[in-house]
Amino acid sequence: MPVVREAVILAAGLGTRMGGRPKGLLKVAGREILYRTIAILQRNGVERFILVTNDRYAQLYREFLERHGFPAEFVINPEPEKGNGHSLHLARNYVSGKFVLVMSDHVYSEAFVEKAMSENGLIADRRPRWVDIKEATKVKVRDGRVERIGKNLKEWDAVDTGFFILDGSIFEVTEELERERSGDYSLSEVVERAKLPVTFLDGLGWTDVDTPEDLKRARKMLVKTAVKGTGDGFVSRHINRKISTEISALLMDRVTPSVMTVFTFALGMVSALLTLVSLPLAGILYQLSSILDGVDGELARAGLRTSKLGGYMDSILDRYVDGAFLALLAYSSLSEPLWYLIALLTLLGSVMVSYSTERFKAAFCSDAYSEVPVLGKLPGKRDERIFLTMLFLLYPSPISIKALFSVLAILTNLRVALTLYLIAKKVS
Amino acid sequence: MPVVREAVILAAGLGTRMGGRPKGLLKVAGREILYRTIAILQRNGVERFILVTNDRYAQLYREFLERHGFPAEFVINPEPEKGNGHSLHLARNYVSGKFVLVMSDHVYSEAFVEKAMSENGLIADRRPRWVDIKEATKVKVRDGRVERIGKNLKEWDAVDTGFFILDGSIFEVTEELERERSGDYSLSEVVERAKLPVTFLDGLGWTDVDTPEDLKRARKMLVKTAVKGTGDGFVSRHINRKISTEISALLMDRVTPSVMTVFTFALGMVSALLTLVSLPLAGILYQLSSILDGVDGELARAGLRTSKLGGYMDSILDRYVDGAFLALLAYSSLSEPLWYLIALLTLLGSVMVSYSTERFKAAFCSDAYSEVPVLGKLPGKRDERIFLTMLFLLYPSPISIKALFSVLAILTNLRVALTLYLIAKKVS
Repeated sequence: MPVVREAVILAAGLGTRMGGRPKGLLKVAGREILYRTIAILQRNGVERFILVTNDRYAQLYREFLERHGFPAEFVINPEPEKGNGHSLHLARNYVSGKFVLVMSDHVYSEAFVEKAMSENGLIADRRPRWVDIKEATKVKVRDGRVERIGKNLKEWDAVDTGFFILDGSIFEVTEELERERSGDYSLSEVVERAKLPVTFLDGLGWTDVDTPEDLKRARKMLVKTAVKGTGDGFVSRHINRKISTEISALLMDRVTPSVMTVFTFALGMVSALLTLVSLPLAGILYQLSSILDGVDGELARAGLRTSKLGGYMDSILDRYVDGAFLALLAYSSLSEPLWYLIALLTLLGSVMVSYSTERFKAAFCSDAYSEVPVLGKLPGKRDERIFLTMLFLLYPSPISIKALFSVLAILTNLRVALTLYLIAKKVS
Repeated sequence: MPVVREAVILAAGLGTRMGGRPKGLLKVAGREILYRTIAILQRNGVERFILVTNDRYAQLYREFLERHGFPAEFVINPEPEKGNGHSLHLARNYVSGKFVLVMSDHVYSEAFVEKAMSENGLIADRRPRWVDIKEATKVKVRDGRVERIGKNLKEWDAVDTGFFILDGSIFEVTEELERERSGDYSLSEVVERAKLPVTFLDGLGWTDVDTPEDLKRARKMLVKTAVKGTGDGFVSRHINRKISTEISALLMDRVTPSVMTVFTFALGMVSALLTLVSLPLAGILYQLSSILDGVDGELARAGLRTSKLGGYMDSILDRYVDGAFLALLAYSSLSEPLWYLIALLTLLGSVMVSYSTERFKAAFCSDAYSEVPVLGKLPGKRDERIFLTMLFLLYPSPISIKALFSVLAILTNLRVALTLYLIAKKVS
């Protein structure tokens, strides 16, 4: 499959409902919509960008693109009040071969763009999760192609995502419409007349921004689709992430990921020290820190600010929180040497669960959870261990503490043994 | 610098002192000399091999090359009894641009080839460590070029390594010599007449094989130059490696690396269990397992059999040996909760020393010791911790055990903190 190397971005609309600011320069999750679109397209192979805008916004866009060093060419639409089909037409001499056509006021998740890039025609969503259906452009499909398109269709199959993979033949249609309508026609008219092929890409993260309300929804979408997933256990998927994404959406434009990393670490350490005072409280705070542990990564991914160093630090600090919690819990609750031995093996197993997958990545430069997907289903991940710890500490007794250490010792070390076995089987 | 993509291997000599077998097919460290040469050259960018051999050996070499799927072309020298300069001449129509010229009976370490590939002309060694100087070909250099070359020079600057980076102009010289000597002239004569540039590459691993005695030396050379180095602490460099390389040279053709990994793990686990019986004995066996821990890697690297899975397994098992040793030592020797707390933090620090560098590699796909070389100088590596443990256990007392745990807890966790600090400084 040839990689699509060019993208046309339509940014000539006057965006009256957003105070007249160019919509592509509105910030969502700390980044301009256009920054996000260009950066993600670049990661997916696009090298040249053609931005169609109007006289009024050209200077603002130019400054923005220069500030970030994005490689873009400008096409000015002197009549932005006419339909946006004309804007596309103006880009006709700037592209060769296949190109992406995308709207400047649409926000896309990385997963959406990654998938859409290898599709064709109009990308449509049969289960749009993040758009206001009333305001959305609907598509009626027949034999895999657009039959009708518009906001007010009574019967429709999917919603237009504003993301297209086109080639030069689309300009034959715009030529026709130019002649017939003296330059005033919408992109929808182009799409309908071209009978573009439709590809369904359902339920992924994308939305458009027309109102301030939409901005909020876009932020939420970015956080929810920024969940990493690999390494998440049962508790994380069903409890922690539900809460952490809400918190991330709230904190998005207020806190940086690294501040969150330090705060979560501090909270974890406080929970470890609390074992000396109150075990139920310690357990609850530990679980709280486990929920918050997702936030730094969510903030970073949603804001396209992930850093390897950030991930590295977070991982080391997590190990220290777990180590400190187990060590202080043992210190505060155990007395016989045999139980200390089990606590020592629990601590070893707890770190080794993470070590065994990280060391895999170090050796093979690839993710253990992708290479051996069943690892994702084995119990014993951090979120599960912490949740279990909290449960056992809610009504603490000498027996429940010993049971906790026994369960954790077996769970973690067995998980490591299984990991070794599965990896050895996979690799050899 | 253009990568050298072709290599001419001279293998037409009749090798009378080695029982008439083609010398390139003699095995050193479980691999034919030629296998080793071709494999290492391939790793360094060479794609085409031209093997000059004689009628008698051609079939053997052909079978060998096909068995391993090496991409080689054959040139037959019908008069191998004549000097090897003629063999080089016969390869003249097979090469274009720069090429490596190398002898089939020379054994080179990976480090030697890696360095030599970016040099020029004759590669000479002023401090040859692994050759019999009497038998070696010496070079007298003047203004950076060969002035004289031969076995019996009285005055000389360096020893000819049998490794050359040449280009087509060398064949102007062989043309001359062909005419003057009717095809009977040595490579040394070519080199001397061409006044080849000389590059010094001193003290690295390489040797030639003329006698059975030389084979032993070659084996030793390969083991000694197969030491990985990064991650080795003071004790490893000055004690463990000295012993482990001797053991590796002995075991080379008898034991596989993975058998050695399992054996060393078992020995380490036995040493951990011995803490329940005799602490001095446990400490000594632990240190012994630490020495043997180098052998699997040395065997693998010397035999060009390194495997990522092998390194992965070894690393996980090492953590379990250390964890088990510390846990059982604490169990057998401590009683107060406070000291158990310190033992728990020691175990955490001990695993985290390794975790903090491996997790770096997982994140950045590059070695922490290369990126932050000062890490190699910080104390607290495994070999040092084990040696220290043995010393403290030689005359065990409650105080010495507590002192050991205290020292290890501080040493390891401080090392991790410093590692984080240095890596954060380096990356950001």
